[in-house]
Amino acid sequence: MTPPPPKVAALRSKDLLGIGELEPDEISLILDTAESMRSIGQREIKKVPALRGRMVANLFFEPSTRTRFSFETAEKWLSADSLNFSGGKGTSTEKGESLLDTATNLQAMSPDLIVIRHGSAGVPHFLARRLEAGVVNAGDGAHEHPTQALLDALTIRRRFGRLEDLSVVIAGDIAHSRVARSNVLLLTKMGARVTVCGPPTLLPPRVEALGARVATDFDEALAGADVVMMLRMQLERQGRSLFPSTREYFARYGLSAERFARASPEAIVMHPGPMNRGVEIASDVADSPRSVILEQVGNGVAVRMAVLYLLLARRPWEGEREAS
Amino acid sequence: MTPPPPKVAALRSKDLLGIGELEPDEISLILDTAESMRSIGQREIKKVPALRGRMVANLFFEPSTRTRFSFETAEKWLSADSLNFSGGKGTSTEKGESLLDTATNLQAMSPDLIVIRHGSAGVPHFLARRLEAGVVNAGDGAHEHPTQALLDALTIRRRFGRLEDLSVVIAGDIAHSRVARSNVLLLTKMGARVTVCGPPTLLPPRVEALGARVATDFDEALAGADVVMMLRMQLERQGRSLFPSTREYFARYGLSAERFARASPEAIVMHPGPMNRGVEIASDVADSPRSVILEQVGNGVAVRMAVLYLLLARRPWEGEREAS
Amino acid sequence: MTPPPPKVAALRSKDLLGIGELEPDEISLILDTAESMRSIGQREIKKVPALRGRMVANLFFEPSTRTRFSFETAEKWLSADSLNFSGGKGTSTEKGESLLDTATNLQAMSPDLIVIRHGSAGVPHFLARRLEAGVVNAGDGAHEHPTQALLDALTIRRRFGRLEDLSVVIAGDIAHSRVARSNVLLLTKMGARVTVCGPPTLLPPRVEALGARVATDFDEALAGADVVMMLRMQLERQGRSLFPSTREYFARYGLSAERFARASPEAIVMHPGPMNRGVEIASDVADSPRSVILEQVGNGVAVRMAVLYLLLARRPWEGEREAS
Repeated sequence: MTPPPPKVAALRSKDLLGIGELEPDEISLILDTAESMRSIGQREIKKVPALRGRMVANLFFEPSTRTRFSFETAEKWLSADSLNFSGGKGTSTEKGESLLDTATNLQAMSPDLIVIRHGSAGVPHFLARRLEAGVVNAGDGAHEHPTQALLDALTIRRRFGRLEDLSVVIAGDIAHSRVARSNVLLLTKMGARVTVCGPPTLLPPRVEALGARVATDFDEALAGADVVMMLRMQLERQGRSLFPSTREYFARYGLSAERFARASPEAIVMHPGPMNRGVEIASDVADSPRSVILEQVGNGVAVRMAVLYLLLARRPWEGEREAS
Repeated sequence: MTPPPPKVAALRSKDLLGIGELEPDEISLILDTAESMRSIGQREIKKVPALRGRMVANLFFEPSTRTRFSFETAEKWLSADSLNFSGGKGTSTEKGESLLDTATNLQAMSPDLIVIRHGSAGVPHFLARRLEAGVVNAGDGAHEHPTQALLDALTIRRRFGRLEDLSVVIAGDIAHSRVARSNVLLLTKMGARVTVCGPPTLLPPRVEALGARVATDFDEALAGADVVMMLRMQLERQGRSLFPSTREYFARYGLSAERFARASPEAIVMHPGPMNRGVEIASDVADSPRSVILEQVGNGVAVRMAVLYLLLARRPWEGEREAS
Repeated sequence: MTPPPPKVAALRSKDLLGIGELEPDEISLILDTAESMRSIGQREIKKVPALRGRMVANLFFEPSTRTRFSFETAEKWLSADSLNFSGGKGTSTEKGESLLDTATNLQAMSPDLIVIRHGSAGVPHFLARRLEAGVVNAGDGAHEHPTQALLDALTIRRRFGRLEDLSVVIAGDIAHSRVARSNVLLLTKMGARVTVCGPPTLLPPRVEALGARVATDFDEALAGADVVMMLRMQLERQGRSLFPSTREYFARYGLSAERFARASPEAIVMHPGPMNRGVEIASDVADSPRSVILEQVGNGVAVRMAVLYLLLARRPWEGEREAS
């Protein structure tokens, strides 16, 4: 068993760009902070003044009602103000230069934090290097989705009391999933044993480099797993061309009750949503007592509150900032 | 004259799904509460802390700026927080199953109330049965639009001091109107005498079952009416095929000043908006002193404040709600 | 040098429709108020309770994320509540009558102020005459964009300590620019000497009537200028038909570093954004220390705060407003 990471009091960066940039002690700090944030959502008056007068701009170039609602809920419970943009251009082909002009313009309105989802990998990093405001990556192309991995980690830790030495299987379209990538990075950093599993066409070229074991036989991969994390099958992207049918996909890589029985008796099943019931997961598994799928959603608000709080609390803003 | 309904202190349900589900004493409670809410809109500082820290999600699958603004205004005046979704799919064909996943996901973010407008009848009821949060129907297909009927009732009651024994004519496309349906239900429950009037093609099959008299001759129906409620002609849906021209429609079912003169000398004219001037209503009638059309809009905010207040005040949320 | 305008304590109108409607003392009042608003954006907690409980409806019939964010930021820093509509119909062809119904409906919900951007000139004026609520023009067709001219004036005044007797060159598509028109009006009212410059096809017919000198030779116009204000070239509208190429446009009317050297040694360069780098302005000029383009954006929030504050503070709302 790995020793517990040393305690740390603050995040080291003004931004949350990816799990790749976080140290284990920072991950633990976020999860610990999220634990205390969870209680706010259970109160009658779900509002604390922690971020009163702070402005968060939510820029969703890829629209996503559920992730936007999760961030907005976190912002409102912490009493921050929000600006919202839900953009048209999914996988934007904006030039870096005009994107930078957009961002520096926004910066000139003095938001304290920018939450950004964008179809192109690296956009949050590009902005973070150039802006004084903090930047939170809410999903960039097929690269990272760090708050998703953090809420998944919180959900696992609440069930098992730890992350280290757990056996986690992540199954589905690994190659195109920022959720998979961020989860592999986080879980291996925290000492879990991770297996990624999917059809060979949906596995990325050098996935072992991330520290995960690779499997193409789902039944074998599931043996003794503590956590089974199913990914959303992007039917509109790969499914139809790479597979004869969703029925065949389910037969080989869908999580049925019979198949889930191969995992540990205490195993939990996770899904980042939205689910394709009957494609990657059977309804009776999704709705079983061992499903923590709705807990993930609730923990998402808590993790985002923790991230907002830590990024904005660590920033001193010592009064004088002259624009001219 | 019907005896006054007994007083009641709270609504009986966590939801407002339709007038069909309300008892007369609950309708009176909402109207009485709305009376006291009206005064807030007349203050310099239009804000009371009644719902501070409560979260309301406004989900408009059928976009409607005016109804959304009315609910949002009500929420802000009561200091509630709002999440807003204005959806693309007008008459959504989403499957019940995925709609339920959407709703349970939203639920997991712990909103206190969900306001929903949807193109399919019954969607609010479907969600209300499955969610812990309260649900307010802001219009579901051709079924019900209860807050519209309540604001209409408030407007009538403020003019006449009562609802019972009034003669109310509702005219236009009765068959496809959730406004007509909710109004017939409410007004007959409260002791008014209701006549619905429209061309035979726009009358629903078993409208008498709702307790309303049916007429196809508008002039005759208007004789002695206290309230004339005109409906919006959905030109894009029925008008063009069911009528040779809007001119002919106006000639037979439009409310001209001459025609309105057949009603009671104290009669008022109402319209839920937006109006097609010159189609179902003449401009001089719409803008006359006997028009209460803009009062309806103002009363809409008051009625929605009352509904939000009663639904959220009645819910104890006694502290502990564990998600895991 | 013109004498300083006399001091005034309040704006004379309930609306801000255009610079054309403002007296010089009112312009000075807005700029002085904006100076004190600037400090709020430099605080750790960027929020004052000045407009708590006031409701502002932001109606953007021409979508513009940056202007909407600027107004919304101003509203939130002053603790006002906001309703937001970002409309589809760019250059709307709505009939005046239905627009009026929309507006009177909105009015009936008692917003304190309406901020409106619309593709048709005169829409804000049309509404202002008919509504009790104040109206702020956030851009109407090719007519006016008064808050842009006010933020430009604030930016100039902060650099030079005055507006009078400065030499200002405004260059680009003068004919179709509400920014140019509002700036010419404001700067000439305040005693600056204004030259507008552009290709003959992009100059309006009677521009001298506004009080500006007209030039078609950009090099000559720049000689000794204190302020060079570049306009955005609407490539999608005129550029392609009126010019063989953007390269040729840049050669004759783009602001290169060499060309900018003809202006005063203390000259500043301005742009309302978003910039077409390499079309109307060279990147090294846009990013030089003499560029105040990002200061303009920051001053935009301050000017909008000042306008909101002055319009809402001047309105007594002495308690009783009965709708019925």
